[in-house]
Amino acid sequence: MFAVDFEPVRRHAKCSKDKSILDCARELNIGLVSICGGVGTCKHCRVKIVSGEVSELTPEEQSAFSDREINQHCRLACLCYPRSDLKIYIPSDSLTAPQRTQVEGLELEVEPEPFIRSFDVQLTPPSLGVPEPDDQNLWSALARQYDVAEGMIDLKVQQQLSPFLRSANWQVRVAMRDDEIIALGPSSTRWLGLAVDIGTTKIAVYLVDIESGKTLASKGLMNPQISYGEDVVSRIVAAGKSHKNAAKLQSLIVDALNMTAASLCESVHADPSHIADAVFVGNTAIHHLFLQLPVQQLGVSPYVPAVRLAVDVKTRDIGLHFAPGAYAHLMPNVAGYVGADHVAMLLAIGIAEAGPTVLAVDIGTNTEICLNHKGRITSVSCASGPAFEGAHIKHGMRAAPGAIEHVRLLGEKLDIQTIGGEPPVGICGSGLLDIVAQLRLNGVLDKSGRMHPHPLVRNLDGMVEFVLAERTNNGDVTVSQKDVRELQLAKTAIRLGIRALVEAEGLTEESIDQVILAGAFGTYIDVESAIEIGMLPDLPLDRFKQVGNAAGTGARLALISRSQRARAQQIALRDGYIELGTIPDFNLKFAQASAMSRSIV
Amino acid sequence: MFAVDFEPVRRHAKCSKDKSILDCARELNIGLVSICGGVGTCKHCRVKIVSGEVSELTPEEQSAFSDREINQHCRLACLCYPRSDLKIYIPSDSLTAPQRTQVEGLELEVEPEPFIRSFDVQLTPPSLGVPEPDDQNLWSALARQYDVAEGMIDLKVQQQLSPFLRSANWQVRVAMRDDEIIALGPSSTRWLGLAVDIGTTKIAVYLVDIESGKTLASKGLMNPQISYGEDVVSRIVAAGKSHKNAAKLQSLIVDALNMTAASLCESVHADPSHIADAVFVGNTAIHHLFLQLPVQQLGVSPYVPAVRLAVDVKTRDIGLHFAPGAYAHLMPNVAGYVGADHVAMLLAIGIAEAGPTVLAVDIGTNTEICLNHKGRITSVSCASGPAFEGAHIKHGMRAAPGAIEHVRLLGEKLDIQTIGGEPPVGICGSGLLDIVAQLRLNGVLDKSGRMHPHPLVRNLDGMVEFVLAERTNNGDVTVSQKDVRELQLAKTAIRLGIRALVEAEGLTEESIDQVILAGAFGTYIDVESAIEIGMLPDLPLDRFKQVGNAAGTGARLALISRSQRARAQQIALRDGYIELGTIPDFNLKFAQASAMSRSIV
Repeated sequence: MFAVDFEPVRRHAKCSKDKSILDCARELNIGLVSICGGVGTCKHCRVKIVSGEVSELTPEEQSAFSDREINQHCRLACLCYPRSDLKIYIPSDSLTAPQRTQVEGLELEVEPEPFIRSFDVQLTPPSLGVPEPDDQNLWSALARQYDVAEGMIDLKVQQQLSPFLRSANWQVRVAMRDDEIIALGPSSTRWLGLAVDIGTTKIAVYLVDIESGKTLASKGLMNPQISYGEDVVSRIVAAGKSHKNAAKLQSLIVDALNMTAASLCESVHADPSHIADAVFVGNTAIHHLFLQLPVQQLGVSPYVPAVRLAVDVKTRDIGLHFAPGAYAHLMPNVAGYVGADHVAMLLAIGIAEAGPTVLAVDIGTNTEICLNHKGRITSVSCASGPAFEGAHIKHGMRAAPGAIEHVRLLGEKLDIQTIGGEPPVGICGSGLLDIVAQLRLNGVLDKSGRMHPHPLVRNLDGMVEFVLAERTNNGDVTVSQKDVRELQLAKTAIRLGIRALVEAEGLTEESIDQVILAGAFGTYIDVESAIEIGMLPDLPLDRFKQVGNAAGTGARLALISRSQRARAQQIALRDGYIELGTIPDFNLKFAQASAMSRSIV
Repeated sequence: MFAVDFEPVRRHAKCSKDKSILDCARELNIGLVSICGGVGTCKHCRVKIVSGEVSELTPEEQSAFSDREINQHCRLACLCYPRSDLKIYIPSDSLTAPQRTQVEGLELEVEPEPFIRSFDVQLTPPSLGVPEPDDQNLWSALARQYDVAEGMIDLKVQQQLSPFLRSANWQVRVAMRDDEIIALGPSSTRWLGLAVDIGTTKIAVYLVDIESGKTLASKGLMNPQISYGEDVVSRIVAAGKSHKNAAKLQSLIVDALNMTAASLCESVHADPSHIADAVFVGNTAIHHLFLQLPVQQLGVSPYVPAVRLAVDVKTRDIGLHFAPGAYAHLMPNVAGYVGADHVAMLLAIGIAEAGPTVLAVDIGTNTEICLNHKGRITSVSCASGPAFEGAHIKHGMRAAPGAIEHVRLLGEKLDIQTIGGEPPVGICGSGLLDIVAQLRLNGVLDKSGRMHPHPLVRNLDGMVEFVLAERTNNGDVTVSQKDVRELQLAKTAIRLGIRALVEAEGLTEESIDQVILAGAFGTYIDVESAIEIGMLPDLPLDRFKQVGNAAGTGARLALISRSQRARAQQIALRDGYIELGTIPDFNLKFAQASAMSRSIV
């Protein structure tokens, strides 16, 4: 029996030499993607052997991997057996969706350079002979012990200063941001930071030790603004209607964040009053709703943000109950539909240093695409619609247990993989992409996207659809001709955005050295399927990289590092936004890009 | 008939050559002090002829004035008649109390150097081709037109930015404080400043044009915290009892200031949202109650302030409804019983530049005294008690119509002067001081302060008292032996403070070049009376100067001038506070100083 460690999920198992790595992972309930059932044909259960000895490479694996991947010890988990203790890394796209969120807990690889400085000071109690005022007493101690010059003290800290000094017996830990004292605590206080990625649908919250830069805990939650509409446009309309709505839309998020911060703090035996710094990212509309900035102008041409530049405000000014004088940093926006979350993503993937020609794509209801060509950064935003989120799709659903996430069709033989291996209940975005690509590969769909006869295609009262799974109780899970059209619109918008950026630089798509796919959906999709239907350019697969929730990572980078925060400012300022509506021959180009094929020209 | 202008009260009259200046002033209801009834003996109706010809100097006037005063065209109004059109200046101490508050409206004599800069900018409306975000658009315009570098925009300004730019047709006036945009208005906006002197009893509020430095309007009001006690100690106790009390004590002042600011603005056709800067002074307890700082430690030895240093906070953080991003500047304190109002007074009288040996005295329930000897500034605080405010005095009252404010006794002949010439209803502080001094001069009081027989002294059931005015309905107005003792305690405390400062510098009182009497009470008192009873040192009268509400003037100076504000910081920092309780032989010195005589040693 060998000891096998799985990273990044941090699970450990004992495994005999005749049990495959896949079986070993399954025993631990690690959701390794496997469509073919473990016979080496679907090639989804890719892992990397970090250390230790394993069985010989099989011919199936030799054809599945490039030479470079083989040198990096990539293997298919279903065909690989342990020969010693092992350490195994599971790439993000080999994990099923609910498991993949765990990668967000990975440590950051930058040196912490926090905005908050912490000082332990010992004050001299005042006497009639030297009746030193409390504020001056504190500054004297800081000067004496740390050579810190006199600055400001936040009003709320001033309001607690005198009783606190006395109860703490004149020995306190001080949190300073630049020249301002923003919090006091007993000597044992660990100052915390909060990084928050507010998505239209989901919010990711990370609690960080501000001195070490380590992520202590994290939590995902639904964005409670959904009660005002699934998409940002309906929320903009609601906020524009009344001040009361706008206030409610803000307080929904703020209340949820206060609760989440409290529960994250509790999980590490800390208190929200120790959160001394916080960074927030989100798209421009979410950013504006969070700060109660005006949103009407976002909804009408030319769709300008009220605020592009980074904002620093006291957290109490937006209703957050953190350290008394804590600041919230809102990373900068780029344009009305290219927000701070995009900037955070670009920061996390190191767009400024990548090159010479790198494309970053964050697919969602709104897809933001950014090209860095030789240091010139340009972004576009495409209205790709909610199809990838499961909306407007007959059996669409979010990535949740029972969602069909991967599909293979060979003639009449259909293999499906659901999240968690549960009985199929619907189709999530990556599943929809796979199905359409497989239908296209098998000639069931033609280049125009029209569905043709096939044993699994049926026509029920004029509704043409492909049956993915038959169910006794709740009706079959199908993909309809209309679903295909929805996806076609979405993929066309994305491809058009990519082309607009490339052409603005006088390049062709062939010149793109690397395509970085960020965001939840971009991480889960099968890149070959996306290429097959013409959503992504037809480039060699090794030019694509799927990086997970990079916006959350960017927010954490800006939280723990002063220079990373400055770098984000630079990225946002350098980012030359192109408004798709200003592109000549837009309609012609749209028609071309809607072709369901690898080559759209 | 000649035209006569009275300054600073700004009243104009026609006057024939056989009507005295005093009669002319009386016709205008200007409250010129006159105890003797206009026969040249009380010498209180002193005025200065600024321009024009008047009647010859009389022998009475020759003996009333020094040569220097005569050269400055000083005259007694009752003995002086016009010979041409005149411009006449009435010194503060020749005006009866209610008139004297008008001097606070005098213009300041410093060059305005406001913290707030105002810029008129014209923005370029955004288009699809150049969809410039609104914040960036504003900064671009400021850079283009004024070379102003990009800074911050207050959150509340961000929240109104987009609709305001559109409604103002992209043409706005911007108020900046350092690198922060704190308010927006239409191009016609005049930015205003508010200077506030919060006294324990009264509040003085000045509305100032921030660019010209001119005082546009001012208003006095009672401090509504009086419902929690007349003195600060009872308010400290109340605030220390519960957070609710502390919040209430703050909101009482804040609500009153919001109302006063609104009515002052209305009087000059402006809006409180145009108040872009505000300066507040008050004693340390009032300062702390205003900011809701902890006050318990102020009430117990060693009586230290929570906050000594100057405080800058958003006015909205203390509940004031001014410009969205306006700051309140609270001038620095010196010690628990030497507050920002004292610093403001020292700024207004130019203590730092005066010398070589100058004493500044602000008499009140608590009397603050400051000595500048060759650049070394030291302050003490004396608990002089509320006798000067009329409290604990049988017929004591505040300076209001009907209050006896000046008294002369010659043998059995008693002359009294009441505020407004009304029938006497009580005695205000300056009246009490006069009576006790006159009783001492006439031998009715001995050096120990004991009251001896006199035709106007009566003994009613063991209560020895001097009758000042007989009244049919409400009983006579009298000064009792007990009242004399109260005043004796007060004057002893003040004199001890003066001696402590002088002795700390190794000097005698004789070395004091100038004694500046500030504050309402110090302005109204008869200096000779104060010397007679030993309250003030026995120095030549021309070394005394009565300057009125200098704290309010200091607040206005700090409001309109950046360098004056910096100077106040310097004064507060240089001020070496002496705690009277630490002085050796205190009891012995107290006994000496209680002697009711010019010389106490």
